[in-house]
Amino acid sequence: MAKPVRSLPGSARRGGTRADISRSLPEETPVAITFDGATQAVMMATPADIEDFALGFALSEGILGGPQDIAGFEVVEHGAGIEARFWLAADRSAEVKARRRAMLGPVGCGLCGIDSLDQALRPLPVLRDPAWQVTAAEVAGATEALRRHQPLHDQTRAVHAAGFLEPGRGITCAREDVGRHNALDKLIGALVRQGTDPAAGAVVLTSRVSVEMVQKTVMAGSPVLIAVSAPTATALGLAREAGLSVAAFARGDGYDIYSHPGRIAGED
Amino acid sequence: MAKPVRSLPGSARRGGTRADISRSLPEETPVAITFDGATQAVMMATPADIEDFALGFALSEGILGGPQDIAGFEVVEHGAGIEARFWLAADRSAEVKARRRAMLGPVGCGLCGIDSLDQALRPLPVLRDPAWQVTAAEVAGATEALRRHQPLHDQTRAVHAAGFLEPGRGITCAREDVGRHNALDKLIGALVRQGTDPAAGAVVLTSRVSVEMVQKTVMAGSPVLIAVSAPTATALGLAREAGLSVAAFARGDGYDIYSHPGRIAGED
Repeated sequence: MAKPVRSLPGSARRGGTRADISRSLPEETPVAITFDGATQAVMMATPADIEDFALGFALSEGILGGPQDIAGFEVVEHGAGIEARFWLAADRSAEVKARRRAMLGPVGCGLCGIDSLDQALRPLPVLRDPAWQVTAAEVAGATEALRRHQPLHDQTRAVHAAGFLEPGRGITCAREDVGRHNALDKLIGALVRQGTDPAAGAVVLTSRVSVEMVQKTVMAGSPVLIAVSAPTATALGLAREAGLSVAAFARGDGYDIYSHPGRIAGED
Repeated sequence: MAKPVRSLPGSARRGGTRADISRSLPEETPVAITFDGATQAVMMATPADIEDFALGFALSEGILGGPQDIAGFEVVEHGAGIEARFWLAADRSAEVKARRRAMLGPVGCGLCGIDSLDQALRPLPVLRDPAWQVTAAEVAGATEALRRHQPLHDQTRAVHAAGFLEPGRGITCAREDVGRHNALDKLIGALVRQGTDPAAGAVVLTSRVSVEMVQKTVMAGSPVLIAVSAPTATALGLAREAGLSVAAFARGDGYDIYSHPGRIAGED
């Protein structure tokens, strides 16, 4: 597999002077995720933690209900990229095939616009209140704590991260990727693979909170989402309906809270 | 159509104090782009400049060769989002249908992993040297100049922009979106709709330079790409092959140049 970082030569011009340089830059590789031989998605991703990525994607997109739905899995490297192949357990396989057939449009591929628009903002499950709370100090400090778990970002200054904050224990897992959706999928997959229930803590992001980040966090079952940047209005609407607490602009000095504040001690 | 910005209430906690706030946040809407009734893609986008977005996407993804391939176009609003409908001219229609059929995998939807991996890094046309050069000062100042054309970002601090820099004339067109790919597609569509050849200037981005940004810029025909953040190694590889000049980390004090420096006066 390609390494996730590559040094490339360039020329830097700063303050009127020119210098030959070498920069550590992140690699991107096409990754295809297939179920029973049919491709669900092809994404450009950082070539690391591919098993985590594939499992997290399958769970956060609702294709797998859990590891019990997997009959087989393999990662195959091709010249053009990486293929993550799932073979589904019989029940799930029939369900996924039926869903795919129902999604076929008039010319045999693609959905009609109306059906596919509905799918983009599909209904989400509603999260229950967890038995735990995080403290306001943990929320405010979460993105700075995550900074200590971003080795690829330290080298390249160009990759996103998603971390898992367990109340009283800090960041206990983190994953990085050039894509912010991929970083979150990798985190979810890593947690499930190591036997940690995503409902036991909060998801922490180096990015904005868009619709897909809310969808993936809710599907994984984590009840609190903390991000360094802004949320979108649409993402907050979804988060409120799904019972997800969203804290944004979380930097050392504080944060904004937009939904379900009761999971943060002292906020209600 | 939904407005691109919405004010939402929240609560801000900074330095130990708590205050009720109202923040201007960007809206996201599902946008389906369909060709002859089949959906090519559904994307979450800022609900503004949808005609630019649809045309730019169709051109930068190679589905249209140019406006002459369009037999009809309409934007239809549904409860769940926006549908941008293209009807293709007869020749193009047959070609797009044939390509779609060739892409169908064994279970009727999705590609087999190997075909779709090849498609992710598909060959690009090679750009010719333009008759113009930009100056080093224009490249270094490009992202700051773009800042003056980002009204949605001024309100929300959470949307990306793509601008068009014409040598000697500054930023002559800019578009914004919550998604960086969408902002670039909107810019390309806006240029073509107003009769400006993208080959006449440089594309300027508020984001990183990933593979898709290189693919879209090359497909549009612009020979220079200037970005405020880092490129990926993979994106630079594509840019070198396609004859695209990439200047990254472009901030007031300078920039790095990684490929085809000859389009910048004094760099060769």
